[in-house]
Amino acid sequence: MTAGIYAARKKLNALLISKDFVGQVGKSSLIENWPGIKKISGLDLLEKFKDHLESFMVDINEGEEVIEIRKKKDFFEVKTTEKDRYFTKSIIVSSGTNPRFLEIPGEKEFVGKGVSYCTTCDSPFFKGKKVAVIGGGNAGFEAALDLSQYAKKIHILEFSSEVKADEFLVERVKKDKKSEILLSVQAKEIKGNDLVSSLIYQDNKSKKTKELKVDGVFIMIGNVPVGGFVKKLVDFNERGEIKIDSLTHQTKTKGLFAAGDVTDIPYKQVVIAAGEGAQAALSCYDYLKKIKK
Amino acid sequence: MTAGIYAARKKLNALLISKDFVGQVGKSSLIENWPGIKKISGLDLLEKFKDHLESFMVDINEGEEVIEIRKKKDFFEVKTTEKDRYFTKSIIVSSGTNPRFLEIPGEKEFVGKGVSYCTTCDSPFFKGKKVAVIGGGNAGFEAALDLSQYAKKIHILEFSSEVKADEFLVERVKKDKKSEILLSVQAKEIKGNDLVSSLIYQDNKSKKTKELKVDGVFIMIGNVPVGGFVKKLVDFNERGEIKIDSLTHQTKTKGLFAAGDVTDIPYKQVVIAAGEGAQAALSCYDYLKKIKK
Repeated sequence: MTAGIYAARKKLNALLISKDFVGQVGKSSLIENWPGIKKISGLDLLEKFKDHLESFMVDINEGEEVIEIRKKKDFFEVKTTEKDRYFTKSIIVSSGTNPRFLEIPGEKEFVGKGVSYCTTCDSPFFKGKKVAVIGGGNAGFEAALDLSQYAKKIHILEFSSEVKADEFLVERVKKDKKSEILLSVQAKEIKGNDLVSSLIYQDNKSKKTKELKVDGVFIMIGNVPVGGFVKKLVDFNERGEIKIDSLTHQTKTKGLFAAGDVTDIPYKQVVIAAGEGAQAALSCYDYLKKIKK
Repeated sequence: MTAGIYAARKKLNALLISKDFVGQVGKSSLIENWPGIKKISGLDLLEKFKDHLESFMVDINEGEEVIEIRKKKDFFEVKTTEKDRYFTKSIIVSSGTNPRFLEIPGEKEFVGKGVSYCTTCDSPFFKGKKVAVIGGGNAGFEAALDLSQYAKKIHILEFSSEVKADEFLVERVKKDKKSEILLSVQAKEIKGNDLVSSLIYQDNKSKKTKELKVDGVFIMIGNVPVGGFVKKLVDFNERGEIKIDSLTHQTKTKGLFAAGDVTDIPYKQVVIAAGEGAQAALSCYDYLKKIKK
């Protein structure tokens, strides 16, 4: 959306295509590090961004998803769920990430029946219940705090021997008597009948298998970049992130730019992605000026 | 300030030293591209940032200026206007830029007497007067729009043969009957008695010298990075910007990071500087964790 704002101010003839404008930000129930706003929900912050974007005369196609981008001579061909071909001289890919799956038995079967990737969306369903949160990073600890408003017991399971979340969050969770942190453990299976009833995990040291009686399992183990639709035009790093030139934000294909969480820029944060979006749009503008001459 | 917010959330033992927290943002009368806020003055936006920063328990020394930073064995020694020595393991330099001077006769003499570098500060003094704006980039065009609320005539002088401002701004200025754009001209001298009375400029093509009767001259020709206090510890590019590794935000000295307009990251924009500040703080946090082990 920041790339859109900058493209609009530069009067580029731009079209924004987005499945939903939600992404990872929308899944965050509380954001405290967007400069200038002490506390805001992800969805409310997105609403502000969208409102700002729409105040410029920008074409926005919401609900449309890009399937494939191909490079033709001196332009790109974009295929979406709604249209076979859009033509454009340049593209900024800022498609973000999707949640990473745990890939253990029971996970897929119980999505929406106790398995969730979004506490903002699903916390209220676990009022008075016991839940497990898989993942001891910021996302896992934030999820535990979200859940604490509803659930009666929260087990945070982290594979490594130490938590990776911000001290700030760790302290808050430690003060919360409902939450318990389990380190050096690996989730193995999600069990239940119609709904989730337990989580099987292994202690990495003793190798013993244990069972946690829970009604919900929140999987917060990171994200997978969404870049499949440009796979023939870009290089990916080992995490599947699109490699960009960090100064020009250009991928290995001329005219194809990328910004935000989908790229190999370190640290996934709203303000960082916004800054990168502005940089990509300004760099794209310079590129278009150059090829015009 | 964004680096400060991120350092606080990571519970780093951080001290922020700033002469004034104003910088270039504070000189902008209207900001329309900070995502989520359609229109805000630079000073109001800074107030929001500062308020946010102060909501964390951060030590802030306002009104203090860093004079020199030296590297000792495994720490830095910081000398300021208030104190001879602060000791620290790492530093983030985000000192921004100062206005660039035109360096023509009359400029220094008439500062505060008609010569200004900040329309937000000084526009109201030119009610019903004629003014010249030197510089045809975004800053110059924004200045012209600011001045248009007060002055009766505005001449924008640009050295090159084309304007460099955003189309958006150019269109608005062109609609404003008070403003006139002069291309391919060079300011030569500012004249007056007690106060400015005219500007002498040369036409680059005809080489003829002309005189504009004006009461004010606003110099908007860019900015000079403020990095002198670390000159022995960093490399500068040809524009005097601190060279950083664009992924780690580290300078050539270990533990010395830099972010924002003072660095060689392209495009000087609030949201870009904020994103870079967050990146530098997170990178600094990772560095401190590593040296602790």
